Amino acid sequence: MSTLSMENKLFKEYVWYSALALAKTVLMSIITVYYRVTLKSIPTPEDAVFMEKSKEKHKVMLQSNAVIERIRRSHLNDLENVLPFVLIALLYVATGPEFSGAVFHFQIFLGARVIHTIAYIYALPQPIRLLGFASGFGINVSMLLHILMALY
Amino acid sequence: MSTLSMENKLFKEYVWYSALALAKTVLMSIITVYYRVTLKSIPTPEDAVFMEKSKEKHKVMLQSNAVIERIRRSHLNDLENVLPFVLIALLYVATGPEFSGAVFHFQIFLGARVIHTIAYIYALPQPIRLLGFASGFGINVSMLLHILMALY
Amino acid sequence: MSTLSMENKLFKEYVWYSALALAKTVLMSIITVYYRVTLKSIPTPEDAVFMEKSKEKHKVMLQSNAVIERIRRSHLNDLENVLPFVLIALLYVATGPEFSGAVFHFQIFLGARVIHTIAYIYALPQPIRLLGFASGFGINVSMLLHILMALY
Repeated sequence: MSTLSMENKLFKEYVWYSALALAKTVLMSIITVYYRVTLKSIPTPEDAVFMEKSKEKHKVMLQSNAVIERIRRSHLNDLENVLPFVLIALLYVATGPEFSGAVFHFQIFLGARVIHTIAYIYALPQPIRLLGFASGFGINVSMLLHILMALY
Repeated sequence: MSTLSMENKLFKEYVWYSALALAKTVLMSIITVYYRVTLKSIPTPEDAVFMEKSKEKHKVMLQSNAVIERIRRSHLNDLENVLPFVLIALLYVATGPEFSGAVFHFQIFLGARVIHTIAYIYALPQPIRLLGFASGFGINVSMLLHILMALY
Repeated sequence: MSTLSMENKLFKEYVWYSALALAKTVLMSIITVYYRVTLKSIPTPEDAVFMEKSKEKHKVMLQSNAVIERIRRSHLNDLENVLPFVLIALLYVATGPEFSGAVFHFQIFLGARVIHTIAYIYALPQPIRLLGFASGFGINVSMLLHILMALY
């Protein structure tokens, strides 16, 4: 039996939680596009030409917008945390960790990142976003330590 | 037979298209370096010292440049879409999708990202870049739905 | 025997070096948080409210800081190079390369990225950072060429 295949029930859990975390991450693009269109704030002149005939309005549209910068930072934070998670968790599953402890790692991570995103977009009072970030970060570190100790 | 091995002909196709998409992504670094050198626009003071003896020119060199910001945004868009693609497609292949439909997903994605990059760098009129982005995004969403439905 | 499993001694080396490279990458978040707290430079108003009672100081805290922008660029450079490395090396291991040559690739990459990060954060004179970047980039290109030639 191969560890990285659907015959391994932990790999199946890995695929499920990774797919959900990646879905959350790629959805940030849609949120960005939605706010760029509704707030009429875009990054390039060719976008302005496409969205607005009146050339006078183009300059305002090309200025940076606080709401969109917030969403973009949230998206970048996902790239910094969710993409490493999916890779670290793959290595972690390959080292054959105990099932329920591993699934618990995946569940905490997914919950932490959902909280982080909501706290970032809606500007919820700190330390909500910090706790979301720190929990997800802690899960990545915990899995990394497990991998390195398993191989050392 | 293991799903994630070269014995699986779909995994072989996955490796091929993922390698091409990753090659396209890492090549953005070279395009950035090329324009930083030719346009003499760099991010740090130590780069300025290395490239130009005349200290008077350093301040201008450290200013942000519209062409380079455009390439950097294009690179970041690859991080937001191509890296998730390689991960999502790995999970997707693990769920054992139908061969020709899966290869079609990979081909559309690669084509969409090549169009997106060319449209971004050469500032082609919209909606060319938008269509490139949306097609690649749609492929990622389609694979995610397939994974979640296969496991639910 | 499956290529992507701990029974394959090259896969084991892959897991080890990838875990170290990912550990280096996620640690950038902690360096960022450390400097944000000690330099009192933060990205959102809710962070300012959490860290500092005196509202008059908030505006200064929300300004961008050269040290933190440097760390953030270093982190982004990791996303552009280390995340592709972990993915490219996985595909590379799947194509069954020669053991010692492959491990040599992983070791050079890890060393190159450690040099790149130190050179970036401590603003070491160029071309130190450039050599760190170029060596890591060369490893990714070398693995990509190996993959494409193995499959073509």
